[in-house]
Amino acid sequence: MIKVINYKECKSLDDILLRSQFSHDDVNEKVKAILEDVKQNGDNALKKYSKMFDNAEIETLEVTEKEIEEAYNRVDDKFKETLNLAYNNIEKFHKKQLRNSYITNEEDGIVMGQIINPIEKVGVYIPGGTAVYPSTVLMNVIPAKVAGVNEIILVSPPNKEGKINDNILAAAKIAGVNRVFKTGGAQAIAALSYGTESIPKVYKIVGPGNIYVAMAKRLVYGEVSIDMVAGPSEVLIIADETANHIHIASDMLAQAEHDKLASSILVTISKEIAEKTKEELYKQLEKLSRKDIALESIENNGRIIITETIDEAIYISNEIAPEHLEISIKEPFSVLSKIKNAGSIFLGDYTPEALGDYLSGANHVIPTSGTAKFASPLSVDDFIKKSYITYYTKDALSKVKDNIINFAEHESLEAHANSVKVRF
Amino acid sequence: MIKVINYKECKSLDDILLRSQFSHDDVNEKVKAILEDVKQNGDNALKKYSKMFDNAEIETLEVTEKEIEEAYNRVDDKFKETLNLAYNNIEKFHKKQLRNSYITNEEDGIVMGQIINPIEKVGVYIPGGTAVYPSTVLMNVIPAKVAGVNEIILVSPPNKEGKINDNILAAAKIAGVNRVFKTGGAQAIAALSYGTESIPKVYKIVGPGNIYVAMAKRLVYGEVSIDMVAGPSEVLIIADETANHIHIASDMLAQAEHDKLASSILVTISKEIAEKTKEELYKQLEKLSRKDIALESIENNGRIIITETIDEAIYISNEIAPEHLEISIKEPFSVLSKIKNAGSIFLGDYTPEALGDYLSGANHVIPTSGTAKFASPLSVDDFIKKSYITYYTKDALSKVKDNIINFAEHESLEAHANSVKVRF
Repeated sequence: MIKVINYKECKSLDDILLRSQFSHDDVNEKVKAILEDVKQNGDNALKKYSKMFDNAEIETLEVTEKEIEEAYNRVDDKFKETLNLAYNNIEKFHKKQLRNSYITNEEDGIVMGQIINPIEKVGVYIPGGTAVYPSTVLMNVIPAKVAGVNEIILVSPPNKEGKINDNILAAAKIAGVNRVFKTGGAQAIAALSYGTESIPKVYKIVGPGNIYVAMAKRLVYGEVSIDMVAGPSEVLIIADETANHIHIASDMLAQAEHDKLASSILVTISKEIAEKTKEELYKQLEKLSRKDIALESIENNGRIIITETIDEAIYISNEIAPEHLEISIKEPFSVLSKIKNAGSIFLGDYTPEALGDYLSGANHVIPTSGTAKFASPLSVDDFIKKSYITYYTKDALSKVKDNIINFAEHESLEAHANSVKVRF
Repeated sequence: MIKVINYKECKSLDDILLRSQFSHDDVNEKVKAILEDVKQNGDNALKKYSKMFDNAEIETLEVTEKEIEEAYNRVDDKFKETLNLAYNNIEKFHKKQLRNSYITNEEDGIVMGQIINPIEKVGVYIPGGTAVYPSTVLMNVIPAKVAGVNEIILVSPPNKEGKINDNILAAAKIAGVNRVFKTGGAQAIAALSYGTESIPKVYKIVGPGNIYVAMAKRLVYGEVSIDMVAGPSEVLIIADETANHIHIASDMLAQAEHDKLASSILVTISKEIAEKTKEELYKQLEKLSRKDIALESIENNGRIIITETIDEAIYISNEIAPEHLEISIKEPFSVLSKIKNAGSIFLGDYTPEALGDYLSGANHVIPTSGTAKFASPLSVDDFIKKSYITYYTKDALSKVKDNIINFAEHESLEAHANSVKVRF
């Protein structure tokens, strides 16, 4: 049974949410060895690991234009229409995030400014195997494209036939990926970080992956940039008595079917909604093809929490800082200013999380495990970088020269002071 | 002697710049043990390490208001004036980086948007010992303050008398730090990451430090956010025949005096400038109090590179992606659009790097070691986070419901499809 908790009786928020911890040491050594192997042996190492982990013989790592074209043609028209609709909405949403470079002109001819440039080369990791998510391709590639990234490299593990799934390739084509390579796991992260004979070194790597991929990203961080180390997916739903328990249960199960580590939390001021949602969960569960996963997620990590007030519910939500937050109360916009920590916020009864997973245009790559306290969903900002510019005239510099010298002296940096003195 | 390289004769850029590598394994275990100790033993562990590493007996970890006030009063008025001038310029520069939340209203009542919130709690690490840099306090604290961070916690190792330097405390007071604690090294990073009896847990840690601090930040990354792992400081100067070799040499030495690992690189199309700068370097070196450090930096990591064209010089600069870039050519603004990778750009002959280190207002926390290919200088962006918002009406959802179901079916996520179906 899903745990139902009365917040009043709850000593600590730890009773509510025990998040699974990302454990380091066990995979650390294995991944380190793979990284080093790819650094030394390039393409040959990648082919070796494809044989070992994917059961695939790979001759040519790069997927040809022709292969992509053929895959695209095999995808049915209805799904291509859906991919294009999603593309348009995602592009539209992310275009609003574009920022301009600027300069300001100040007295004595001073010019200060901030220049925005796209990151030149980006790698996108897309998992393979049973979980084939073309939506992930769109969500990771489109913001990079909008930012103006020149070279977007997609890597994904091949299946036993040495192929990448058609829907993934179709999404890659629609999203505007520049090159696609058949390689996965820690070895793919190594290839993107160091470069191999076939695969160019990139400056940033984004995209989800299993624990080996996550560890590899962690280890190459610094050498290249990474997006974030994502944990299991989460939804928290704040509901009052006006909410619909059937909708709530369906959204909790949509989260739960992802992964047995996923967590679905309902926080409600209505005992009736709590009770009805609980019943409805088990009713809907019966019909699901992924029932086993969803059930385990609901029983282990699912929670129904009853609070006295909506403010208490919001307090809990801010402390948990959920990846997805649904607000299903009478006036959802009225509490928006109180939400401090949440990745993506879904307001009202007709805004299910699944809408955002695919089609609304907001990015579905969102900080998990409470990291919404300091991190943001994927955006155009992740694919640009800023340079500051400073220009002073001799007059302008002369007015502050004594202060610079004074500062340098207080930091015992004589050559700093000298670099100003020699100019006068 | 500083190495002078003719770019024409150069096979690879590796000949030009061999950056020092950050080595992991040696300090990894030590730092892990310290992190774990602080997690378990809190304040007691911090006091133990202060005794061990700082030779200081610490009774109370927090610096009192009175101590800060007294330190502030001991600082001379001229330096307080300088600190305030720097404060004003830094605040002015960073205020331009503030962004607003926005929503857009679309057809069928759809509302999409992006909400900006400051990170609630931030920790700032300030090194102690011989290198006392109040400028670092201003540069790390002011953008957080401008972003609206509620609680800014500064930590810094005490000296043998159990005190933090007066100039650091005065800068902290001027910058608007909320609380100051006497603790340094990996143990301070642990305290900020996990919290102790005295020190609150924060969500993000910024500020420079030695290799133990850098390793600790690397290890807690994910649990909290960190700014960046900074390497040795660098300047690259692009010069033509109109440049002034005395100014160039003084700026190279200002960089070199920081650290024997620092690197100063001149790239010039003028053989005369190359030759004269080389001579001038050794002339100016003689007079410096930090001559030994600067000399070692110049001889080991300094470079003078002669190219045939300015475009070649820019190519080298973009590949190196320097922390600081000075452009000392006749029309410096004319090449700005070609600069792709650089942290902070100083244009013209009267814009020495030292100006930016202290007073221009641009941040002096800038990506090193080539990370300007993907990273940005510290800014207000580092202290905010974004949440997406989505609101759909029943009408709006009904128009896309078939596409959501279609997408979910292609990802074999039945409960996702179901969460839309139950609403109609």
